[in-house]
Amino acid sequence: MTVDIEQFLIKEDFEGYEDPAKFETFKPKIEKYLKALNDGIKPEYSITLPKSIDELVKEQFNPIEYLYKEKLLTEKEFEITDTPGVELVKQMSEGKLTAVEVFKAFVKRGTICHQFTNCAMDLFPEEGLAQAEALDEYYKKNGKIIGPLHGLPISLKEQMDYKGHIRHASYVSQIDHVCEEHGASAAILGKLGAVFYIRTTQPQTLMHLDSAQNITGYTRNPYNMSLSPGGSSSGEGSISAFGGSIIGMGSDIGGSIRGPSAFSGSHGLRPTSKRIGLLGGLSSGGGQESVMAVAGPMCRSMDDIELCMKAYINDGKPWEFDQNCLRMPWREVPKPAAKDLTIAVMYDDGIVKPTPPMERGLKETVAKLEKAGVKIVEFKPIKTELAWETVKKMYNCDGNYMQKKLLAESGEPLFPLTRWALNFGEGKTALTVAENRQLNIIRDQLRNEYNRFLLENKIDFVLSPSYNNVAPKPNQVYNWSYTGLWNILDFPTMTIQTGLFQDPKVDKYDESFKDYKFRSPVEELELTNYKPEEFVGAPIGLQLSGLRYTDEEVVAASKLIVEILDVDLTKIY
Amino acid sequence: MTVDIEQFLIKEDFEGYEDPAKFETFKPKIEKYLKALNDGIKPEYSITLPKSIDELVKEQFNPIEYLYKEKLLTEKEFEITDTPGVELVKQMSEGKLTAVEVFKAFVKRGTICHQFTNCAMDLFPEEGLAQAEALDEYYKKNGKIIGPLHGLPISLKEQMDYKGHIRHASYVSQIDHVCEEHGASAAILGKLGAVFYIRTTQPQTLMHLDSAQNITGYTRNPYNMSLSPGGSSSGEGSISAFGGSIIGMGSDIGGSIRGPSAFSGSHGLRPTSKRIGLLGGLSSGGGQESVMAVAGPMCRSMDDIELCMKAYINDGKPWEFDQNCLRMPWREVPKPAAKDLTIAVMYDDGIVKPTPPMERGLKETVAKLEKAGVKIVEFKPIKTELAWETVKKMYNCDGNYMQKKLLAESGEPLFPLTRWALNFGEGKTALTVAENRQLNIIRDQLRNEYNRFLLENKIDFVLSPSYNNVAPKPNQVYNWSYTGLWNILDFPTMTIQTGLFQDPKVDKYDESFKDYKFRSPVEELELTNYKPEEFVGAPIGLQLSGLRYTDEEVVAASKLIVEILDVDLTKIY
Repeated sequence: MTVDIEQFLIKEDFEGYEDPAKFETFKPKIEKYLKALNDGIKPEYSITLPKSIDELVKEQFNPIEYLYKEKLLTEKEFEITDTPGVELVKQMSEGKLTAVEVFKAFVKRGTICHQFTNCAMDLFPEEGLAQAEALDEYYKKNGKIIGPLHGLPISLKEQMDYKGHIRHASYVSQIDHVCEEHGASAAILGKLGAVFYIRTTQPQTLMHLDSAQNITGYTRNPYNMSLSPGGSSSGEGSISAFGGSIIGMGSDIGGSIRGPSAFSGSHGLRPTSKRIGLLGGLSSGGGQESVMAVAGPMCRSMDDIELCMKAYINDGKPWEFDQNCLRMPWREVPKPAAKDLTIAVMYDDGIVKPTPPMERGLKETVAKLEKAGVKIVEFKPIKTELAWETVKKMYNCDGNYMQKKLLAESGEPLFPLTRWALNFGEGKTALTVAENRQLNIIRDQLRNEYNRFLLENKIDFVLSPSYNNVAPKPNQVYNWSYTGLWNILDFPTMTIQTGLFQDPKVDKYDESFKDYKFRSPVEELELTNYKPEEFVGAPIGLQLSGLRYTDEEVVAASKLIVEILDVDLTKIY
Repeated sequence: MTVDIEQFLIKEDFEGYEDPAKFETFKPKIEKYLKALNDGIKPEYSITLPKSIDELVKEQFNPIEYLYKEKLLTEKEFEITDTPGVELVKQMSEGKLTAVEVFKAFVKRGTICHQFTNCAMDLFPEEGLAQAEALDEYYKKNGKIIGPLHGLPISLKEQMDYKGHIRHASYVSQIDHVCEEHGASAAILGKLGAVFYIRTTQPQTLMHLDSAQNITGYTRNPYNMSLSPGGSSSGEGSISAFGGSIIGMGSDIGGSIRGPSAFSGSHGLRPTSKRIGLLGGLSSGGGQESVMAVAGPMCRSMDDIELCMKAYINDGKPWEFDQNCLRMPWREVPKPAAKDLTIAVMYDDGIVKPTPPMERGLKETVAKLEKAGVKIVEFKPIKTELAWETVKKMYNCDGNYMQKKLLAESGEPLFPLTRWALNFGEGKTALTVAENRQLNIIRDQLRNEYNRFLLENKIDFVLSPSYNNVAPKPNQVYNWSYTGLWNILDFPTMTIQTGLFQDPKVDKYDESFKDYKFRSPVEELELTNYKPEEFVGAPIGLQLSGLRYTDEEVVAASKLIVEILDVDLTKIY
């Protein structure tokens, strides 16, 4: 019972992309890049791994557990890095902590994370230290913090422009590109007091829910090194869950924040489009606005997600930097009472049914929410297949013009999931502008249908799996229908950690599964890939979606939900 | 010194559009439609025109002046129809006026307007009367008004869906289409208490700043019947300036609110995109989102523009009806002090220089603003040519696929300005999706450049002509660069009446004009079309633009400006 993914990938469709000879000429540049990256691991933060990476992968090693059990940090460093950002800022504002103390604890933890998970593409601890020192100087001189994110170490997806640093967005062809200016995230968060020392991995083309690329290789899951951290904000998944930064800034056009958060073990918000800036960065989707990419925070604390959004919008005024941002203040929305909430649960999107750990995660979560007084109703999928087919076409209806250009310039080899995504929708067939407009019309009809359904049925939020499985094995994540749905709808959606983890003894298919009729080859592929013993300890993450522009309500409800579920991601071990 | 516009129009480009035989089969439907329209002129509102339409056109007849001089309304009817909507609602809420009284005064004035200007496509006074009666019933029963627009007669551009009525959007092929539901404007304004009795003209394809179409012919300017009322909200231009409705709802993708407001003599706001709903209506631009169409109000009173926006957004909650609308409340912004304002003036956009009346309008306005304490600086055009060339391509980069479909289905004859607009940009050449995405990137760069320029130079608003001329003669408006600029930038922009009118004795080219070097054939065409004696009494309208989503500030500043200019459009005669 296996499905050959090559059946979906026609070799001829990718002619003109790969060129081994040309790629060869880029290898010295990659070597140089890797050396610089490695130089970013300062001796004082360098550790001896318990075994070789290969062995650790093989035994599904859990670096987060190891971090705590082996006490790789001092007590003080644990205390700092396991304190929510809101509280750290408060302590710094009261002079109880310095930015340098905070920075040093995080850079140590983050560098350890990188040594296990390969999450970094750019490590620059000296620059970060200088930023932290400047903040302490500012505090000393002015007796107050510089802004609402004063001294908080924030990690950035590499794709986002960072002044004076290389930004290649995982395209080998772009490995020489040095940014002249900060992009929106670095510029705005930096202005608010954030400190930067790490920029993190993303997969080739940024269009995998996984991590493979030709520059630094694969990134690994911090709860089980044999698993994918998710993608495309792969490194942000690892580092935000490991606690190497207080906030990780990812981006999401099909699940690229929610996937890595769910897989790696952090909470992560895909905001409504245009609330957070995207100016300054590279993706193949420039000018594509049928389904909008968004940036958003990934954190172990829901309070820090709120802090990030509120500070970014209300203090950062992103519309002054990036005119595409809505001049829409972040509203104060109190945490709702459980009894006032109606949550509709989508147990199966009709495309790929969830695997046993995801089913269990949903059921246990629903039981706890119901017990707490939340009204739960079932959400029967509305045109999910149309939504998924439409959004896939939107991604590459330029006939992969830009992807091909960026890939072919280096001739780099294509990973299987790159070919998979390049084949989405019409594959290499470019649509006409008229056809693209028709897709937009379908999208708007879907949005209005969901909008009205929620309003008419007084449903506050929809709870669903963030993927049909827990973190998959590398190169084995094909279906994004659970996350992609909310991208085409543009509903703000939060990945919420349930505090539950895959357990191979419990999370098995029951007897009836052998009679299950797969609804598509992709479903067969996804479900047969799940073998309980291979996913030990993978976090179980769900997602909560609300109407467009109700990001505030989604965050407030998420805070209530983690409270009900009693989830504290700093206290797993 | 004339330019033949046919040089820009290649006959072969329009093959497959026109089909006289097919069009013949639609003529009985048009006849039936016109009869129904004519039946909407109730005997009690029917007037005897002073001369034939042809003669009135020939002598540049001014119906607004005639309305007052000949006292075509009773004193009470004048009083009602010349009272701002904000005040009418107040009086109705206090029981001093009934909705039926208000309605009858407006329907009379509006029906007179139609008889001069041919502004209506759909007249349904009985339905409107029933709505007004129901409001009076409501008031009697509940002792309060139903909503913030209680009893206000609002006119709608025909393009907007109206339940149970035909909506053809000036495409002959659509003349059988009866709406099943209200579109956003009728649904939301109706819910707030508005009363409807008239739906108004728009040109063929909706892509002229003029009025010609094959169903009801031309619409005429209410200040000078020989001139165009503007377009594409042609009928809304006429009726809002004539006072036949308190608010006219138009729509604008290249100047279609601001053109008719400027030409016909009302104020008109093109809001930032997505603040007002567009759901339910027809245009060829469905799914096109490189440059967004918007709907917005056209009024004789700035207070009523504010009333409309505030009620529509804060009470109407358009995002519940049309998910495309931003959940962005209308903010209360006080009228600024003149001394706190910095306005940059664009005297010439570098594409077509303004004609003498427009130059005078700008100069006299600037003098008054400066005298009142406003800081005036000059605004040198920033990449206006790139902006105009880009936005023109955006309109029809589907290779006119949808236009052709809608036109060819009836084979209706094409008006010269239809061919002109179909030839915009690449003409009939469809761009690829990749090329369309490139246009979006150019647009975003332009937006950021303007955004930063205004912020860095502390410029609050830009004042510019709303067109290079006053209202043109029919079939003679080719250049939309002044309005189109703000569409591609998506800056909220208000047409403001200066209270000035063309004066053939004053508004002449000076001697130097004979040596003027036209910068393009279009400039030659536009400027040589201006002959002072042919534009007698045309209103002079300017436009005020602010940053995206600062609609509130634009409205507040516009209120100050009409106060400084001492403009009262109900007291011209």
